[in-house]
Amino acid sequence: MKKLSILFLFAILAIACTKKKETKTTSNELTAAEKVDATIIKEIFDTALLNGKSHEWLRDLTTNVGGRLSGSPEAAMAVKWGEHVMKEAGLDSVWLQPAMVPHWIRGEKEVAYYISDGKKFDMAVCALGGSISTPRDGVMAEVIEVKSIKEAEALGAIAKGKIIFFNRPFDNTLINTFSAYGGSVDQRGSGAKTVGKFGALAVIVRSMTNNIDNYPHTGTMRYGDIPESEYIPAAAISTLAAENLSKSLKENPNLKVYLKQSSKNLPKEKSFNVIGEIRGSENPEKVIVVGGHLDSWDLGDGAHDDGTGIVQSLEVLHLFKTNKIKPKNTIRVVFFMDEEQGGSGSKAYAKNVKTTKEIHIGGVESDSGGFTPRGFTIDANSANTDLLKSWKKLLAPYGLHDINKGGSGADVGKLKSEGVTLVGYRPDSQRYFDYHHAATDTFDKVNKRELELGSASMASMIYLMDKYLYNNAPN
Amino acid sequence: MKKLSILFLFAILAIACTKKKETKTTSNELTAAEKVDATIIKEIFDTALLNGKSHEWLRDLTTNVGGRLSGSPEAAMAVKWGEHVMKEAGLDSVWLQPAMVPHWIRGEKEVAYYISDGKKFDMAVCALGGSISTPRDGVMAEVIEVKSIKEAEALGAIAKGKIIFFNRPFDNTLINTFSAYGGSVDQRGSGAKTVGKFGALAVIVRSMTNNIDNYPHTGTMRYGDIPESEYIPAAAISTLAAENLSKSLKENPNLKVYLKQSSKNLPKEKSFNVIGEIRGSENPEKVIVVGGHLDSWDLGDGAHDDGTGIVQSLEVLHLFKTNKIKPKNTIRVVFFMDEEQGGSGSKAYAKNVKTTKEIHIGGVESDSGGFTPRGFTIDANSANTDLLKSWKKLLAPYGLHDINKGGSGADVGKLKSEGVTLVGYRPDSQRYFDYHHAATDTFDKVNKRELELGSASMASMIYLMDKYLYNNAPN
Repeated sequence: MKKLSILFLFAILAIACTKKKETKTTSNELTAAEKVDATIIKEIFDTALLNGKSHEWLRDLTTNVGGRLSGSPEAAMAVKWGEHVMKEAGLDSVWLQPAMVPHWIRGEKEVAYYISDGKKFDMAVCALGGSISTPRDGVMAEVIEVKSIKEAEALGAIAKGKIIFFNRPFDNTLINTFSAYGGSVDQRGSGAKTVGKFGALAVIVRSMTNNIDNYPHTGTMRYGDIPESEYIPAAAISTLAAENLSKSLKENPNLKVYLKQSSKNLPKEKSFNVIGEIRGSENPEKVIVVGGHLDSWDLGDGAHDDGTGIVQSLEVLHLFKTNKIKPKNTIRVVFFMDEEQGGSGSKAYAKNVKTTKEIHIGGVESDSGGFTPRGFTIDANSANTDLLKSWKKLLAPYGLHDINKGGSGADVGKLKSEGVTLVGYRPDSQRYFDYHHAATDTFDKVNKRELELGSASMASMIYLMDKYLYNNAPN
Repeated sequence: MKKLSILFLFAILAIACTKKKETKTTSNELTAAEKVDATIIKEIFDTALLNGKSHEWLRDLTTNVGGRLSGSPEAAMAVKWGEHVMKEAGLDSVWLQPAMVPHWIRGEKEVAYYISDGKKFDMAVCALGGSISTPRDGVMAEVIEVKSIKEAEALGAIAKGKIIFFNRPFDNTLINTFSAYGGSVDQRGSGAKTVGKFGALAVIVRSMTNNIDNYPHTGTMRYGDIPESEYIPAAAISTLAAENLSKSLKENPNLKVYLKQSSKNLPKEKSFNVIGEIRGSENPEKVIVVGGHLDSWDLGDGAHDDGTGIVQSLEVLHLFKTNKIKPKNTIRVVFFMDEEQGGSGSKAYAKNVKTTKEIHIGGVESDSGGFTPRGFTIDANSANTDLLKSWKKLLAPYGLHDINKGGSGADVGKLKSEGVTLVGYRPDSQRYFDYHHAATDTFDKVNKRELELGSASMASMIYLMDKYLYNNAPN
């Protein structure tokens, strides 16, 4: 072996090392192709902030339709509204997709109070979605406070004739408030079915929020497959009422709670997903879907949940049109019906995809409120997950730092299969549960710029997905 | 040369390459020392979110003192309030530091309207801080609309007898709204002094906000060193009024605006910075200061500007005490007086540091609102800048991704000198100018968790600065 060979080897290794170094030091700089993307993303954000329509759409929906429970006349109005705004936005086609949805009605304003030492203490209350009514004159009974389903499950016979009070609060040390929600919401969903079999008369559940305030937060509950004879009414009380009741119970364990509600489940109603699309210029048969849900709870106007999600989703297509971005694949917006009470809309959508063998290559959902952008969660194969993460340098200038593996959402999540890249838009979560499912979820709680930045974040993500996911499409 | 040598060389180079790779792949993992820091930072956040006091302090200040203009009786009340809460927090020492502050009063509610084609159009208006009054009966004159100081400067004699209307809006495409503010605020500060010399009768300035709404936003203006004979009154009108006026001017360039205000500048008043500290266990003579400003404008309650900054600053020391963190250096909280109308408080503070040769090694300011955390800006030498940036991996889990070079703030910024590491706390900026200097800057606009996350962010930064900046202290 000669010196020359040694030098040669040296040179190769030195180059290899240098290359690695270069890659590292330039990781925050952009390639020529990335510069093109950065320019288009800037245009998308500029357009959303200067000429976005989402805020006015949301004002219209929340003011002129308001809360829109699945199966309600307001939900039917919302379908017409959705069809109208999509047509106005000049999409290539707009259509309705039928789904049979639950039709639960709240009935008269609920009443709850407790009597302790001869004094009456009112509690802010609302029936939970899906719950049956109390008897016409309400129920009055002693109360057992529990902190978990497990604790309730262990009650057995002592629950008979009692009202069971689920009072485990949010874990406020969790930075992402959705994690705190996830850690408490089983009480709302499964409380009633857990203690119905013991002969409990009703359940009252601490509202699902980080705050101590006096708004009850509704939401769905389920009887599952228990016999109808075990169905008992379920209501949420405000966190303030829960704190007060818990305190009073420590002083007077025999105090009695009164609850009256007249909610009921009616036969299913025919409703619709509202769908529109811009056809792809190269692969019109391949679809990237973007959506949120059109239905909402009835106490507020369904602004953050999920009015913001649907107007942002439509804005994505509007931003493509305004900026003359011609997607290679078909970009489709879906206003899903009935996310809140079972997801019949997204089930109908997913079923249709399967039966027609329609090819979906991606989906983005916005159902976490219209707050300032933080990032995206990705449910995809590892190659596409890494691809989406690699766009962080393009997206971070807009506050989109958190681009991580995670779920997409209840609606587009049903499209999960190999080769489909599903994404959840993740705005800042701190204020979400101030409003979620409560009377406070109204238009004035939505900041125009935060909403618009969200639309632009989603449009930028979909622009990149349309351009770069192509080769990852299933056959 | 033998084969062995070649293999040896190969091995060395291979190891070198591998090392680089390892460094890269483990960059997001923590060393043992970092794990200790991560644990303490987690405890700081947990305590802020579960047992923080900032939200109740802010409720007290905004409700029981309210708006607190420098030199006003409310500002004097705020000083007493500050002294009281610092003493209650159990700091090692609490004292007042005198400063002579401006005393400007707004007087009666201002009136502005325009008459066009015989119709009267009211405009939401407020005098700008520091402005003189109009004549008792107000002024009425034709209007010249300009978009910049440069354009106003070019008016010359045609400005005589006119009201000059500064109407350059925020650039809403700037993601950080402070950049948009910075690009427009010269109109408010320097409009009057630019056209006073031409004999203009008054200036009205479009409010400094991203939104189109009907709230006038006050703020300081300056006559600088122009002769008093050239002083003319200056007011802000709401962005909605500005849009309407501009539109009407296009149709009727000779319409007349009426403005009446009775604001005036009184002799300076004695006021105080409120100061408290926890003495350092190793280097009590070395100080890290944390602060915001105690004064505010008068239209709202001074919640986000800067009630949140001062309660967060005090919370930093409270979190140190609650978590039994013994700082090596002295940690000092300062509620600076008069940030809004000239910074006389911070000037007094900086002057005292200079005359007593007190050693400051760091300073952190919170004066950008109590919104969800985004990061910090650093004004320090390059070694300390790099050091602070290296903490991103510890802070990113709390939403603190943006840790970059930049200014600290108007108050601690005056401590700038070699060896001092100055830091600005940077929450999300999207909502700040909705409330800034307007009647809408009230307690209910502050989200408890966002406020508390800010306190914990600042406390974590100061914990790290106290621990690691030590060797960078000046002698």
